[in-house]
Amino acid sequence: MHPPYLLTDLYELTMQAGYLEHDMAGKPAVFDLYFRTNPFAGGYAVFAGLEPALAYLKDLRCSPAEIDYLQGLGLFNDRFFDYLRSFRFRGTVVAPPEGTVVFANEPLLTATGTLAEVQLVETVLLNIINFQTLVATKAARICHAAGDGEVIEFGLRRAQGPDGGLSASRAACIGGAKGTSNVLAGMRFDLPVRGTHAHSWVQSFPDELTAFRAYAGVFPDSSVLLVDTYDTLKSGLPNAITVARELREQGHELRAIRLDSGDLAYLSRQARQMLDAAGFANVRILASNELDEQVIASIREEGGRIDIYGVGTKLATAAGVGGVALGGVYKLVAIDGRPKMKVTSDPAKATLPGYKQLLRAVAPDGGYVQDVVCLQEDTLSAGATVFDPFNPMRQTRLPADIRLVDLRQTVLQDGQRTMEPEPLAAMAERCRRDLALLPQGCRRFINPHHYKVSISSRLKELRCQLIEKVTSEKEKQ
Amino acid sequence: MHPPYLLTDLYELTMQAGYLEHDMAGKPAVFDLYFRTNPFAGGYAVFAGLEPALAYLKDLRCSPAEIDYLQGLGLFNDRFFDYLRSFRFRGTVVAPPEGTVVFANEPLLTATGTLAEVQLVETVLLNIINFQTLVATKAARICHAAGDGEVIEFGLRRAQGPDGGLSASRAACIGGAKGTSNVLAGMRFDLPVRGTHAHSWVQSFPDELTAFRAYAGVFPDSSVLLVDTYDTLKSGLPNAITVARELREQGHELRAIRLDSGDLAYLSRQARQMLDAAGFANVRILASNELDEQVIASIREEGGRIDIYGVGTKLATAAGVGGVALGGVYKLVAIDGRPKMKVTSDPAKATLPGYKQLLRAVAPDGGYVQDVVCLQEDTLSAGATVFDPFNPMRQTRLPADIRLVDLRQTVLQDGQRTMEPEPLAAMAERCRRDLALLPQGCRRFINPHHYKVSISSRLKELRCQLIEKVTSEKEKQ
Repeated sequence: MHPPYLLTDLYELTMQAGYLEHDMAGKPAVFDLYFRTNPFAGGYAVFAGLEPALAYLKDLRCSPAEIDYLQGLGLFNDRFFDYLRSFRFRGTVVAPPEGTVVFANEPLLTATGTLAEVQLVETVLLNIINFQTLVATKAARICHAAGDGEVIEFGLRRAQGPDGGLSASRAACIGGAKGTSNVLAGMRFDLPVRGTHAHSWVQSFPDELTAFRAYAGVFPDSSVLLVDTYDTLKSGLPNAITVARELREQGHELRAIRLDSGDLAYLSRQARQMLDAAGFANVRILASNELDEQVIASIREEGGRIDIYGVGTKLATAAGVGGVALGGVYKLVAIDGRPKMKVTSDPAKATLPGYKQLLRAVAPDGGYVQDVVCLQEDTLSAGATVFDPFNPMRQTRLPADIRLVDLRQTVLQDGQRTMEPEPLAAMAERCRRDLALLPQGCRRFINPHHYKVSISSRLKELRCQLIEKVTSEKEKQ
Repeated sequence: MHPPYLLTDLYELTMQAGYLEHDMAGKPAVFDLYFRTNPFAGGYAVFAGLEPALAYLKDLRCSPAEIDYLQGLGLFNDRFFDYLRSFRFRGTVVAPPEGTVVFANEPLLTATGTLAEVQLVETVLLNIINFQTLVATKAARICHAAGDGEVIEFGLRRAQGPDGGLSASRAACIGGAKGTSNVLAGMRFDLPVRGTHAHSWVQSFPDELTAFRAYAGVFPDSSVLLVDTYDTLKSGLPNAITVARELREQGHELRAIRLDSGDLAYLSRQARQMLDAAGFANVRILASNELDEQVIASIREEGGRIDIYGVGTKLATAAGVGGVALGGVYKLVAIDGRPKMKVTSDPAKATLPGYKQLLRAVAPDGGYVQDVVCLQEDTLSAGATVFDPFNPMRQTRLPADIRLVDLRQTVLQDGQRTMEPEPLAAMAERCRRDLALLPQGCRRFINPHHYKVSISSRLKELRCQLIEKVTSEKEKQ
């Protein structure tokens, strides 16, 4: 099964056909994928979605059925259909590995190839990377709020479509979630799967105690009992403790109880006391119900005793201010070897022209100091003066003791993969490590530390030249 | 290709295995799918997602690879694997047709079958119907704001995953969008596809006029020119008008221009004047850039002259207050022929027990008066007294001249479809008609009219009995 060629905006196809008609389809072109603001009004983002994006590029074909459909639209000619029949993506892609912590205005994925092929893939690259980066970032924020608590992704039923749920499970585990309730995601991406039981289980038995006994009887070593069907403290917990005792007599241990309504901070403190007093300090407390980073932070501030947070809707849909959709864009930065720049009246929307590198300045202790975007031919070194991308008046000097690390690697060369897919656990570990090396304050939810992303002197010069050129051409008109 | 059995929460599988172990898997059970609050703080919702949900149920199988994976988890026994090998969904489903306007607390989809099979499908039914209902509702709101203007869905690049984009295109067209940029959605669901060109097209040519001429040369009868790459009023529009003249000389007409930044109300008024003055009253104005129902309403209030609204992110992700995720739930309402009810301290979360009907009271002029939920065996008629579902003190009398229409039909009988899939255009037409028959004020964005959903006298009695029973049992404990 090839990925569908037509999973794209119509304008990608009309532009392809147009370039072909004007003999421009084969011109070498370079596009950068980036976003302009960190999501969730936060201090960073976690790059994710690369592996599914590469799988898409590598196997992309236009099927006969798709060509039939396009023929029916009456928009295209035979020259285009011939082009589609033999289409393969033969471009080259550089990108950071998934789990890398990245920032606004950094070229994340750069695609180089013929104008027609790199233009086409805009829509799907944005679709996949926008969403997975957003969810991985949301997961990192939620895990930060949870401290030593474990976060499990529970969102499939509220996700945006079946695949929305699957990609969310994947990305959540890159960002720090320790498992998912989504069994297919567990199978596809080798993630731990976790679950409890529903209220309907309790309702299907004559009473709660019978229901708990029945569940524990089938899963004596992995039961998580949902205690809020009737009354959490008066009925659910006493019944769960009874079952925990019976399990222990048979050589098993109840794994956890689950709270799913009410005041979770209060109920978890009470539950912890009741469990401890009954000799079940090992039984963990799982909580769910519209959790996100803010709710979790406030539960912990109030001394809540939750060990595992089941986070559904807000994680799988990356909800919240500055969330729901990452505004990633994909912009032409060079054609025919010449750097290109979009110059608009809004300086925040002006692009960084040319084929570029993304470097990270790392202190001797390993901590991240700042990032620098420079031209490919730049030879930047410690001590160099670098500039604010939106204001050339603002400049700083890179410390003399840093080393500069190239954050990106060639992941697709002329349409072929250059390396094996990486296990998800390695991406999650990279994310954990990167987050720990950020300057303090970057992970703060409110008014986070602004991590600096500068441009090199040569990139600044090129930008000024191109702005001047466009401005003088406008004046001539 | 069968739909994946494992696209579900782990707890659905552990409950299945548990019911099997306790010889309860085959008990007849009934679940209702419904939501508790209208999305977007609005006055209604548009039911969507049924067709993909039925396709899922009808073909559901557990593949050998899925069973292998489950065996590796070490949670389940051979009895369960035997059950999975022969699993088919043989349940019965009733639901309204897609495009029906529905309300909070109405049983939308009701699934009847064995406890193990109807429990399993909870997660996917919620996933599909929650998201598509939400997007169809968002589309209906946006189309309402757009008045006679056309709405086109442009959201694939910001949607939540590839399928998030596809289902969003489908649902948006049920709710009133007239087309999509997503070509695969156009092919799969027989929707009109629409497009323009990107800024990169303009940047790939020496200047804007050359770029416009090149595009119009390839698509002389369907060009929509994006006029904001350099300067909308000083460069883009004059160049577009030049090209419109050249096209006309060759016997063609420019279709539209597209605004994608700046003050869209102002720019569209100016653009309309310039086009009209140049003799191009027929050239339409398309606008895009973070549109939603509020932005569109305010553009129209200011006298904006937009003919076509390209709505992306906010439509495809159903963003906005009370949006992003529809909080649909799926609750057990009967088992073994006995009605069941979840009684909680929060009356809004108490369920409506038993197998029920969903009726709509229709006035002689065809207008919708209110809905009534009643028991299957109820014989409700005009003039009957009906009750507020959350407060039995509040009652009303159905007018004597209404007729009661059953909103739902049996769409799956013992696992078999009872009717052919309906074309999307029929669903969109039903939605359009239903919205027009609602009481005035239901479509208002701010403080909308509250459409009444009542319960019958017998359903109210059953509810009171069950609450009393649970309460007295609690007191005995």
